Amino acid sequence: MEFKILHEDSCTSGRQGLLSTPHGEVETPLFMPVATMGTVKTMDNVDLEKQGAKALISNAFLLYLRPGLDIIHSAGGLHKFMNWPHVLFKYSGGFQMIRRDFLKSADMNSVKFKSPFDGQVHELTPEKNMEIQLALGGDIIMALDDCPPAGAAYSNVQASLERTLDWAKRCKIYFDEHAGDKKVGLFGIVQGGIHQDLRGSCIEKLTNLDFNGYGIGGLSIGEAKSDMYRTLEFTIPKLPADKVRYLMGVGSPEDLLKSIALGVDVFDSVFPTRNARHSTIYTAQGKINIGRSTYRSDQSPLDKECKCYTCENHSRAYVNHLLKQKEPLGIRLTTLHNLHFLMELVRQARTALVEDEFERFKECFLDEYESDRD
Amino acid sequence: MEFKILHEDSCTSGRQGLLSTPHGEVETPLFMPVATMGTVKTMDNVDLEKQGAKALISNAFLLYLRPGLDIIHSAGGLHKFMNWPHVLFKYSGGFQMIRRDFLKSADMNSVKFKSPFDGQVHELTPEKNMEIQLALGGDIIMALDDCPPAGAAYSNVQASLERTLDWAKRCKIYFDEHAGDKKVGLFGIVQGGIHQDLRGSCIEKLTNLDFNGYGIGGLSIGEAKSDMYRTLEFTIPKLPADKVRYLMGVGSPEDLLKSIALGVDVFDSVFPTRNARHSTIYTAQGKINIGRSTYRSDQSPLDKECKCYTCENHSRAYVNHLLKQKEPLGIRLTTLHNLHFLMELVRQARTALVEDEFERFKECFLDEYESDRD
Repeated sequence: MEFKILHEDSCTSGRQGLLSTPHGEVETPLFMPVATMGTVKTMDNVDLEKQGAKALISNAFLLYLRPGLDIIHSAGGLHKFMNWPHVLFKYSGGFQMIRRDFLKSADMNSVKFKSPFDGQVHELTPEKNMEIQLALGGDIIMALDDCPPAGAAYSNVQASLERTLDWAKRCKIYFDEHAGDKKVGLFGIVQGGIHQDLRGSCIEKLTNLDFNGYGIGGLSIGEAKSDMYRTLEFTIPKLPADKVRYLMGVGSPEDLLKSIALGVDVFDSVFPTRNARHSTIYTAQGKINIGRSTYRSDQSPLDKECKCYTCENHSRAYVNHLLKQKEPLGIRLTTLHNLHFLMELVRQARTALVEDEFERFKECFLDEYESDRD
Repeated sequence: MEFKILHEDSCTSGRQGLLSTPHGEVETPLFMPVATMGTVKTMDNVDLEKQGAKALISNAFLLYLRPGLDIIHSAGGLHKFMNWPHVLFKYSGGFQMIRRDFLKSADMNSVKFKSPFDGQVHELTPEKNMEIQLALGGDIIMALDDCPPAGAAYSNVQASLERTLDWAKRCKIYFDEHAGDKKVGLFGIVQGGIHQDLRGSCIEKLTNLDFNGYGIGGLSIGEAKSDMYRTLEFTIPKLPADKVRYLMGVGSPEDLLKSIALGVDVFDSVFPTRNARHSTIYTAQGKINIGRSTYRSDQSPLDKECKCYTCENHSRAYVNHLLKQKEPLGIRLTTLHNLHFLMELVRQARTALVEDEFERFKECFLDEYESDRD
């Protein structure tokens, strides 16, 4: 894989670039819909392509549990199993460690998970995780990290960070020995909670290992927004300027624009799709809950300026009816809309960056968006 | 509306025709997917158009309950509410009377339903039903009928039939006075259980009222297959040859072909969509349950000869995985396939009728289909 910065914004730390992978090129800033189990919930591949999605991220560990490596391997890898011809990122599954019902135990050597499917215990070492990710195939894979919960004590975050760093090293060694000529990229993940010294020392040690790019993990997990932005502000400038910066799990319209301004290149989040399944849709004026009775006879589209299939074909009243009746089409139409909205926002952000108009674009959008009247 | 028979099969009683409505022409034999609540479950309008669906049927009474006439009226009618530009049939909702949890009471004057949504009791007279159906808009509406359950005693079927006939007359009177220049068609529904005399006298009385077409109701509701075919064999020849014959609620591949041979023009059924949501898919070799573990690493398409989106893009293994994980895409892919399979079967049946090859076509299909090895 290769990453080129094509334009640096004159006013913010934002940058516009091109990420080249074995499955094509994608422009950055990039938002990736999440295909945890090998599918973006309610979407088919044509839907995704129509929204301009050229990169998805799946969860390697969950796919290892279901349907299992054997099945994905016999299909010829995850790309073929999903019939997705574009870019695929793979996440280790380490994030599941903050789910108490999922984590069994973790020590320096490995993490033990209880399968959410059958309760069986699986031991995941960094080497095993790399083996799984390389077997699944993909364009960019992430090192196994240990993500402490929001609000964890400093000493716990510090202990957890030691694991993250040790595992990153072991992932890198395994990867260098086994990736061969697969041209897949390996990203390290920066942890350290909201602590400047821990984030700083993490970056120092990770960059010594020279990963192809860097994930910023452990944010947007319940901490205050001000803590998240403070952390991004002291974290991002320490990352190597020529490598991809991937802010993991962030995906609200306002967070995307604010983080792009700080120099983030890549995002993923279940927010647009999960919100859609809970009737929350994005509009230029902010989020609204389209399942509310207010909208039951509203004949206007979800968002007046949106060009998505849902907005061009259906009214708020119809979508409200479908959601109330739990008709499967309801959550598909809201998901189509939310993904289109975010993909279009990021596309416009890229254009604004190239035209050195990003700050104005961001402020304009946020002024209208944050005046949410719902 | 207008109905023309364009070709009569030389070997069977099958016929090929053209039904012209205010929302376009549809060729018969015709299979209509069911959009009970104003949506064919899991499908959008583009999906339906791609399967060649040019006519749907909705349930007037259920739409009257949810979202309600006011909302559909303010959208400009059901066509506009759904944004469906093609043909719409409307069913009265009388069939719900065989659901004990739904029916409160019925007498000669009206039927009282308990709303499945909020338990509120609604009284439905034939006049009220026509008023609802005309207010919703649509191309063809059905008279309110009383459908006795399968296996009902002769005397009960007889009593029920008296209501069906009285209501048909009242529907026709109301319709003639109120339909105005809406060009909508009204079909009467033939009831009478599996009794030749009752079906016969029903047809005699209904045809005296001169409906635009005739539904055949009260079949495929749990009676033996042999009873259904025996009933069709003595019922269909009594119906006027120049009017549409619509066998309600029938939709398995084998029943479609066998009933087309007996002279049925129009079908509707939730079978293909409901089966799809329960992992049952059609193949040329019969139905299979694609959710079974047998298919977990089967890399072949659902049906080798099928040209639907699912079969052209995804493997049985992938669909099996999606269904097991209850991923929303799973039931959408199986629904797309089942609808395509049925629509294509009926399209081929029409061609075979025109070419006087229907009997051979039917036998070929059934030979392979009924050798179901699942």
